[in-house]
Amino acid sequence: MTDTDTATVIRELSARLAVLEDRQAIVDLMTSYGPAVDSGSEEAVARVWTEDGVYDVDTGIMRGHAEITAMVRGENHQGFITNGCAHVLEPGNVIVDGDTAVATCKSLLILARPDKSAFTVLRATANRWELIKTADGEWKCTRRTSRVLDGRSEAPRVLAEGVPGPDGTLKHGAGAGTIGRA
Amino acid sequence: MTDTDTATVIRELSARLAVLEDRQAIVDLMTSYGPAVDSGSEEAVARVWTEDGVYDVDTGIMRGHAEITAMVRGENHQGFITNGCAHVLEPGNVIVDGDTAVATCKSLLILARPDKSAFTVLRATANRWELIKTADGEWKCTRRTSRVLDGRSEAPRVLAEGVPGPDGTLKHGAGAGTIGRA
Amino acid sequence: MTDTDTATVIRELSARLAVLEDRQAIVDLMTSYGPAVDSGSEEAVARVWTEDGVYDVDTGIMRGHAEITAMVRGENHQGFITNGCAHVLEPGNVIVDGDTAVATCKSLLILARPDKSAFTVLRATANRWELIKTADGEWKCTRRTSRVLDGRSEAPRVLAEGVPGPDGTLKHGAGAGTIGRA
Repeated sequence: MTDTDTATVIRELSARLAVLEDRQAIVDLMTSYGPAVDSGSEEAVARVWTEDGVYDVDTGIMRGHAEITAMVRGENHQGFITNGCAHVLEPGNVIVDGDTAVATCKSLLILARPDKSAFTVLRATANRWELIKTADGEWKCTRRTSRVLDGRSEAPRVLAEGVPGPDGTLKHGAGAGTIGRA
Repeated sequence: MTDTDTATVIRELSARLAVLEDRQAIVDLMTSYGPAVDSGSEEAVARVWTEDGVYDVDTGIMRGHAEITAMVRGENHQGFITNGCAHVLEPGNVIVDGDTAVATCKSLLILARPDKSAFTVLRATANRWELIKTADGEWKCTRRTSRVLDGRSEAPRVLAEGVPGPDGTLKHGAGAGTIGRA
Repeated sequence: MTDTDTATVIRELSARLAVLEDRQAIVDLMTSYGPAVDSGSEEAVARVWTEDGVYDVDTGIMRGHAEITAMVRGENHQGFITNGCAHVLEPGNVIVDGDTAVATCKSLLILARPDKSAFTVLRATANRWELIKTADGEWKCTRRTSRVLDGRSEAPRVLAEGVPGPDGTLKHGAGAGTIGRA
């Protein structure tokens, strides 16, 4: 190979690696939510999002780190932890488009029953994570949209917006879910 | 390094990358099922399989895209969506053998209760995904075998066939589960 | 590029690849547990751990392969399989530190109800996997600590110890959870 050939091949290898590294970073980000939320580690929960990131749940919308940490410290969430709870996340279906990405998956909120004999699945929820690669190369969530799958039509629509067409791309792009936006 | 050395090393790096890229493609394929099935995106569900792929469930066998999309459009599945449902998949244990692979995992079918107060785990199912890399380089499912873990012996056998021996290989190979085959 | 440049760049690519290969190996190890345990494949269950690895569950502690395989063969676990059971694992949040790693996640133990009409979530459990890369390059579990999330304070603490600080590192390092240690 000439030097030019070698440089080109190395650049191509590095680009292929970068694709996988982005995917790994997104998995790391998403899986960091669970241990943080179920242990009440409020700052680590907030770090999943950008400073002004939005967590839009059917039960309420949180904008920015302060509102997200307030939710973790709140009576409702602290009651879940004291009672015994598990926020379980299945692997996301991730579609990356440059420095943005969408991950679509379901989550379960599972609570210990009062008599501790077993657990109840309180919520099964459709999730859309809109993600960006920040200036310093970290992936963060800009908006997570969560709708409980209790028959309301917008919950399956959250999932449908994460389903790519035959060409592998999303109809609404990586950054623009329509559910829950004004 | 001589040019020959460099070319060899680059080929080795590229081969190591290809192993990880195959694994990523398999994860992408498997995680695309959930958002598609829970949103009734019938064509996207079918695209998980090869054109003549088989979805062999204890409740019935579907052969090819037309039978799979018919299931998604069917009264039973549409009733799940209208009621509120989540097909949750745990990460698969994937064993690749060249252009074929087997992924073994469990799935849960979770339904909203009639009064929407909580959810019921209707089914916990053993899954074997037989996968191939097609001529155009895409991974697809040729056969997914699903058996509910309700005590019937063939369900743990679906899982056992995906457990490699001490040498890391499968007794029945990557393409030949025995459950549900005539 | 000079030969020296080329050699350096190739070494860097190889190191980046090795990071991802380690992560893949850890996923493979963790996902091998489920199919093995739910099919009663006792030797494959034990192979998740080093020879003297510890599985420390709130219901009892197992030290080394012989005690782990005895659990799988035991009346309690065999009863689960005969009845119908699924040990479901969510994706772990994995933090690698050289040849050691910690993976934190939740697991669910799901059992078929006696009348087989549906399933019960018997346990939702906090898990900490302490992992090492052995001399022959394989990742193995040295200690898995599991505490049921039924409100006991040590269960969220298992999770909290796997939550990294703002710098991405663990307070107690990759090899030293405090829960369940004498």
